[in-house]
Amino acid sequence: MANGGDEVVSNKQVILKEYVSGSPKESNLQVRISSINLKIPQGCNGILVKNLYLSCDPYMITRMKNLQLKQDYVHSFLLGSPISGYGVAKVIESEHPNFKKGDLIWGMTGWEEYSFITATETFFKIQDKDVPLSYYTGILGMPGVSAYAGFYEICSPKKGEYVFVSAASGAVGQLVGQFAKLSGCYVVGSAGSKEKVDLLKNKLGFDEAFNYKEEQDLNAALQRYFPEGIDIYFENVGGKMLDAVLLNMRLRGRIAVCGMISQYNLDQPEGVHYLSNIILKRIRMEGFMVFDHYHLYPKYLEMILPRIRQGKIVYVEDKDEGLESGPAALIGLFAGCNQGKKVVVVAHE
Amino acid sequence: MANGGDEVVSNKQVILKEYVSGSPKESNLQVRISSINLKIPQGCNGILVKNLYLSCDPYMITRMKNLQLKQDYVHSFLLGSPISGYGVAKVIESEHPNFKKGDLIWGMTGWEEYSFITATETFFKIQDKDVPLSYYTGILGMPGVSAYAGFYEICSPKKGEYVFVSAASGAVGQLVGQFAKLSGCYVVGSAGSKEKVDLLKNKLGFDEAFNYKEEQDLNAALQRYFPEGIDIYFENVGGKMLDAVLLNMRLRGRIAVCGMISQYNLDQPEGVHYLSNIILKRIRMEGFMVFDHYHLYPKYLEMILPRIRQGKIVYVEDKDEGLESGPAALIGLFAGCNQGKKVVVVAHE
Repeated sequence: MANGGDEVVSNKQVILKEYVSGSPKESNLQVRISSINLKIPQGCNGILVKNLYLSCDPYMITRMKNLQLKQDYVHSFLLGSPISGYGVAKVIESEHPNFKKGDLIWGMTGWEEYSFITATETFFKIQDKDVPLSYYTGILGMPGVSAYAGFYEICSPKKGEYVFVSAASGAVGQLVGQFAKLSGCYVVGSAGSKEKVDLLKNKLGFDEAFNYKEEQDLNAALQRYFPEGIDIYFENVGGKMLDAVLLNMRLRGRIAVCGMISQYNLDQPEGVHYLSNIILKRIRMEGFMVFDHYHLYPKYLEMILPRIRQGKIVYVEDKDEGLESGPAALIGLFAGCNQGKKVVVVAHE
Repeated sequence: MANGGDEVVSNKQVILKEYVSGSPKESNLQVRISSINLKIPQGCNGILVKNLYLSCDPYMITRMKNLQLKQDYVHSFLLGSPISGYGVAKVIESEHPNFKKGDLIWGMTGWEEYSFITATETFFKIQDKDVPLSYYTGILGMPGVSAYAGFYEICSPKKGEYVFVSAASGAVGQLVGQFAKLSGCYVVGSAGSKEKVDLLKNKLGFDEAFNYKEEQDLNAALQRYFPEGIDIYFENVGGKMLDAVLLNMRLRGRIAVCGMISQYNLDQPEGVHYLSNIILKRIRMEGFMVFDHYHLYPKYLEMILPRIRQGKIVYVEDKDEGLESGPAALIGLFAGCNQGKKVVVVAHE
């Protein structure tokens, strides 16, 4: 389809059809076929990439809503446009001095086959290619830095401490549990199915794990797994679980708040009642976002790459093939359908 | 009433008659006349003190309940015994090498005219007597160190930041507001009456103040006083106020959790719904108790004493005369009856 030096090709996209209200549905998204010119204007300083792996992350639900925040921490996706998220991509055309054709990169890209990108500063170049490329959506990407910064910087773990991780088999949780073991901690994870609990205990090295859906009384469950109480809670879910944790925290406990996935789809978030434990037990509860911690990425890679190669840290991915599987993959996150880090494979390299 | 070398005198006491359930009532306490031997056994390592000023503090309500905490952060008062709390006292007899007759001290004493004390390690000797002695229950005592540690250590204030203090005319709040002004911050306080609001604005130097009872919508009130949002929240009340604050916090805001007085008398604490702001805004919320910070006391005295003498920091006390006024004074705290730091005067020196 060359046209006056241009090369227009079809470009499958996942677009936001309507803003989410209440629970997200696949029908909020739509797969459509658009087109894109593979020749980019000279001097535009942008790059054209072929997207390979797209990351499904819980925070994305927030951007699927019609946000009316005074402050601009997060922006809504544009209706009728492809949604965006972290992904691994290959540069197929570059007008930017730092990137060249063939470079593999990861960063914030579009949910489409090809993306034209001008905000290149958010991308990292992939140097180490002897590990699965899809890992750059997970253990070697945003979730990896989240787990690393949240656990080491916010929680300041000490050997022998008691660590609890919720949504523990997810993209971030599975790493936090393994980091806790590396630090000599006792670690318990919660998840939402027997299969995930098995994964935590048998593959990811958690000391214990439980299915929160089978517990009538989360407080009793935590008392059972933490008779001495919890020093560190890595918070991924919020709501009732946070309340039960507050009752079971120990003196000078730390809560790193990475996410609250149980609350994102509620019109009115659940109330948390036992915050006064924060005083009695001198608890520090701290929210964080990965953007503030990317300066740690080189240090993190240095720590994690050898451990991946030696098999000392493992990572469980749950891949769906084809961009058309995107809406179900993303929406499925909120029903806990994924087993490990959810990735949409747009194209193999 | 000398009796074989002993000197038994009558000793008025405020005792816990029944544990509090629901709202505390004066009838939970009782004033009774007991007796005490003013001669203490040789070599007992204890001291006998005459109590002068007793401090009414919100945390005391917790000890008036029948606590069944697994961990022993706090102990219930004993039924039928005098309650205890911070107070200023004069040593009238000493068998302890560090104390001598005539010493003025402050620390954890009984709500009674005379107390025999063996846990002397919790007492500070009063060196500076050119300021009102009752100040050692407030600005120069536990509330002073609480305000100092909570504001400077937990909140890390920076010039120009926006500070909000709840229960702002209370023993701790009125100091936090003045510290905020010393640090070059903008500070707004909330309180529960017109008189307290006047006190905050006209005597204590707050930039603004409001009566939370007159606000239909706390979120709207905070938006009005903090169009740019809140950097630092000094939390004394909890519940609905905390929820409204979370909506109005700024990026990297800090919340020092000193108390949650609105929640102490509820059978089921209110739910706090907007905790997910902790993530988006990277908020640090940290509980503290003054016990962990008494090592700062000498440094604090060095800072505060000259400022008191120069009139650069003021302190508002609300004194009731006589131990028999104790039950009403203490219970009145929870209805917000006090105007400033509530003190019971047992005896003038």
